[in-house]
Order: sequence, then C-alpha cells, then structure tokens
Amino acid sequence: MTGTVTPIKITNKEIANDFLNRYDTFLFDCDGVLWLGNHLLPYTKEFLDTLTKLGKQAIFVTNNSTKSRLQYTKKFASFGVTVKEEQIFTSGYASAIYVRDFLKLQPGKDKVWVFGESGIADELSKMGYESLGGVDPRLETEFDATTSPFLINGLDESVTAVIAGLDHNINYHKLAITLQYLQQEKVHFVGTNVDSTFPQKGFTFPGAGSMVESLAFSSGRRPAYCGKPNMNMLNTIVSAFNLDKSKCCMVGDRLNTDMKFGVEGKLGGTLLVLSGIETEERALEISEEHVNPKFFAEKLGDIYELYKQ
Amino acid sequence: MTGTVTPIKITNKEIANDFLNRYDTFLFDCDGVLWLGNHLLPYTKEFLDTLTKLGKQAIFVTNNSTKSRLQYTKKFASFGVTVKEEQIFTSGYASAIYVRDFLKLQPGKDKVWVFGESGIADELSKMGYESLGGVDPRLETEFDATTSPFLINGLDESVTAVIAGLDHNINYHKLAITLQYLQQEKVHFVGTNVDSTFPQKGFTFPGAGSMVESLAFSSGRRPAYCGKPNMNMLNTIVSAFNLDKSKCCMVGDRLNTDMKFGVEGKLGGTLLVLSGIETEERALEISEEHVNPKFFAEKLGDIYELYKQ
Repeated sequence: MTGTVTPIKITNKEIANDFLNRYDTFLFDCDGVLWLGNHLLPYTKEFLDTLTKLGKQAIFVTNNSTKSRLQYTKKFASFGVTVKEEQIFTSGYASAIYVRDFLKLQPGKDKVWVFGESGIADELSKMGYESLGGVDPRLETEFDATTSPFLINGLDESVTAVIAGLDHNINYHKLAITLQYLQQEKVHFVGTNVDSTFPQKGFTFPGAGSMVESLAFSSGRRPAYCGKPNMNMLNTIVSAFNLDKSKCCMVGDRLNTDMKFGVEGKLGGTLLVLSGIETEERALEISEEHVNPKFFAEKLGDIYELYKQ
Repeated sequence: MTGTVTPIKITNKEIANDFLNRYDTFLFDCDGVLWLGNHLLPYTKEFLDTLTKLGKQAIFVTNNSTKSRLQYTKKFASFGVTVKEEQIFTSGYASAIYVRDFLKLQPGKDKVWVFGESGIADELSKMGYESLGGVDPRLETEFDATTSPFLINGLDESVTAVIAGLDHNINYHKLAITLQYLQQEKVHFVGTNVDSTFPQKGFTFPGAGSMVESLAFSSGRRPAYCGKPNMNMLNTIVSAFNLDKSKCCMVGDRLNTDMKFGVEGKLGGTLLVLSGIETEERALEISEEHVNPKFFAEKLGDIYELYKQ
C-alpha cells in the first residue's frame, strides 16, 4: 500500500524520547490501555504524571457509554489519578453532542428515548435534555403489549431521537419500546458506538454494536454512530481544545477503532499498546482490513520505564 | 417481469371453487392466517373442516419457534380444532431436523446450545439430543464473568451447534454465553428464522431475526436460517409427506416469507390473506422487493363463506 510505513516498536530510551517529543496532546483509550477492568496497569499513573511534567495534554476518549464523564473522573480518582471532567469524552457524551450540535434538538421541547445505561442519560441531562427509557425500572418488568406503561397511553410525541448503546440489562421490553420509536420516521436513530464486542477477563463479550445492530435489523434503519472511529467524535474534541492535529497522538488497544480513528482523523501519530486485544503480529500485518499504527509497545508503562532509564 | 400474472382476488363462489379444486395439499402459516394471537379468526374451523371433507391435506408451517409442535396441537385443540403433531412444522422443529439431517450431529454425543424458548429444546429432546442453555433458570441471573456457572468450569466441549431463535426473556447472560460457543470454529450456527419483526395487537415487535443478527454481529459469523422462506424447511415437508409440489398451495399473510416460500419452492399455488400484515395494494404491487401471490383474499373465512353460498 502506498505510504505504508512499518510500525516502530518502542523498545529503547531513544525511541521513547522521540515518541514523547513528537506530540503535544495524547488521546487515550481507557480500558485495555490504562487499566483492565478494575485493575490499573503498571506505571499508568507515572506515565500520565510524566506527560503533565513535560507540559503535555492528556485527553481520554472511550467508547464505553455505560458511565458518565463524572463517573469516569471517580474511576480515575480511585486509582489516585486526578482528571477533570472536561478531559473525558465517552461515546455517550459524543452522542449527546451529536444530538445537540448536529440534529439540533431543542432542550425543553425535544426528548430522547435511550436504550442503554446511565452514562447516556446523565450527559443528556447535563445539556438540558429530558430523556425517557434507559434505566427506568418500569422497563425491567416483563413485557406485555396490553399493559406496558410505555404503550398504554401511546408513545411520547416529544421524542425526536433514539440513542442506543450497550445495556447489560438488555431485555425484550426495552427492545420492543425502542423499536416503536424507531418506527416513527421523525425520530432520529443514533448509536453510541459500533464495537461488536469488548474484552473482559480474558473473554470477549457482546458490545454496544451488537445491540444497536439488533435494533437496526428490526427497524430496517441505519444508525448514525458517534463513538470511535467516527469522525464526529474527533471533530468535537479537536474543536473543544482547539488542537493542532499534527501534534496529536491517538493511543489505543484496537486497530479497527482506536488506530483507525487516529489515521482517518489525520492525527500526527498513533500508538498501539498490546495490553488489550491486539497482538504484535496484527500490528505489523499489512491488510486492507485494518490500518497500522505508527508506534506500538507491549504496554504504556514500558514507555515510562524506558523514558526513566 | 416475465411470467408475472396479476394476483386473483377470491371474491365469488366460482373463484373459490376453482381455488379449492386446484390443490390437494394446503400449507398454512398460523398467526395472522388462522388466528391473531389467542383469537381464532372467523370460519377458520369451518374452512379446515371443509378441506377434510373434500379429502384435502392440511399442513401447518410456522416460523414461531417458542412453542413445540405438541404445544401447537394444544393451541389448536383450545380452538376446537384437532390437528396431529405430524401436521405441524415449526422453525424450531425445522432447526432440529437441520441439525440431525444436514449437520449430522450424533445423539448421545453432540450437544446443542440453545438461545431461545422451550419450543427448540423440546424438539431436540424428542430426537434424542441433549441441549444446554435455553430456559435454564441459571441464565436468568445477572451475568458476571467470574461467577457464571456456564464459564467457571469452561465451556461444554460436547457442544457442536448453536440454535438461536426468538427469546422474550433475552438477557446479557444468554447473549454472552452464546457468543462464547459461537467463537469456537467447530460449533455450527443455526438460526430458526430470519423474521425481523412480528405483528401483535396492532404493533410490530422485534422478531427472531433481530436476536440472531445480534449474535451474528458480535460473532462475525453468518447463521444457516431454517424457517420460511428457507428451502430446507420446504424440502423436509415435501419429503415427509411425499408431496406433489404442483398440487400444493402455500397460504400465508407475509409476502417476504410465506409467499416467497411458495414461489421459490415452486409450489402449484400461493394464497395471501390480508388478515395479517399485508395490504391489497402490496399484494398487487409489482416490485423486485417481493413476489406476488397467485390468489389473495381478505381472510381465510371469506373463502369458506363463498364456497358455502
């Protein structure tokens, strides 16, 4: 492929220094990069502290829509890392921004039906939007078309968008009512992120995309996806921080979302870490099915250790 | 389109007689044709009794996999209609036949993981296959990768096929474990039926296909679909009753499953009834997106009333 350059593995202090010097801003995926579930990866805190000392900017970009940005700051704090809400972009937040800036829904007038966990509704609420569905406990009851409180008085006419994402409490009641809204032409269909799976504890479990695609199939509609690698998310971040893209580096553990996000977004660089789901073989493999990173490392902490040598 | 003949609406006794005389065997879809949910449509029983008096054969072919054939005989009985188990083909039964005759799974050795309701496992059990998953109450508990009884001792190595269909009790535990089996190359992936939705009480709710497609997306695999309009189902029926296809008529309420099933299966005729989800406009519409029926009627009972005049 024209322009393909062999990815550089960060294996010594010189390469580590070169990598750190090239960029002003680092965009981090979180799970698989900084931590695995509730287990912080070694030297993550030290790496982030080093960036601060070097005057670099850190931004956290996650396709996880189940938590709000505020909840993410608490997760960072539990690891002893102080991060401001403004530094965090979740796919739920990106979806709320899409609803506000692209679909131009009006707070106080338009409502959003949510299929997903609290991270989506929380971000909508912060922007002044009323949402329905989501974690409403009435959706946890067994579905019956004749008694569902979401059907007996008709659909809410104020709903003009559906945002759908990962819901660990997926059930038929939620799928059925979400479909009713998607059957209305006036209702926009937004998906938080396309990820078919996510890794956890050595397994690969169904991701947001598998639920959004179920709704896409039943409704016969295509969603507008907001998370990585969609450029809506990158454009929002670049504009919010007034970033020089050539001085930005995307750091992640997935070729088909994180690395694609950095390459298609024309960021100055990309770093793949192998602490998530990818292997060195995949990082180096030339394939039309995925992009290659500019740099890669076994894990983020390795770069800190090399830098400190 | 070459060979397209305008569908004939059955509106008088002469056409009704001609329709009944043409065929020896009638294959009926059930919901939307014979009944709507738990409400038998007018003159259904009389129509079926007439067929018996005329020496015709009736076979019932449904994409509903939630009930077994035995349960279907009970549903017919509740309406005062006597039907033998052998006259009924559900998509769950078709899937079990596919597993037995096409995949050649061995009873007592191979096991099947089921995503769906009891109608699937019941048919497998009748053929001597042990199934896992399905309505196992342990799948109703909240999913945790570290405690799930389906993960802690590893997957069952005897499982060589997954059958997935409609499950009104869909949850994350079921999706997650089913995906683990689908991630094994040796495990075949069978879908009961592709229907994206089904009609109920004036609404359209998510169908089996929406769940199977969710699993297809998370696993990156394509299922073998067994229900209508798949020809596996028709071939099984034709062979079981040694039917002359030219003397068979498919009766249904959906163009894209029932009528397609009859046309692609080269049955002698098709009858669309408008008591389900289609309209006269759609029945007559020439479109590359759907086939047209040979005959159509507002409802099955109309044909009985015209015949009796």
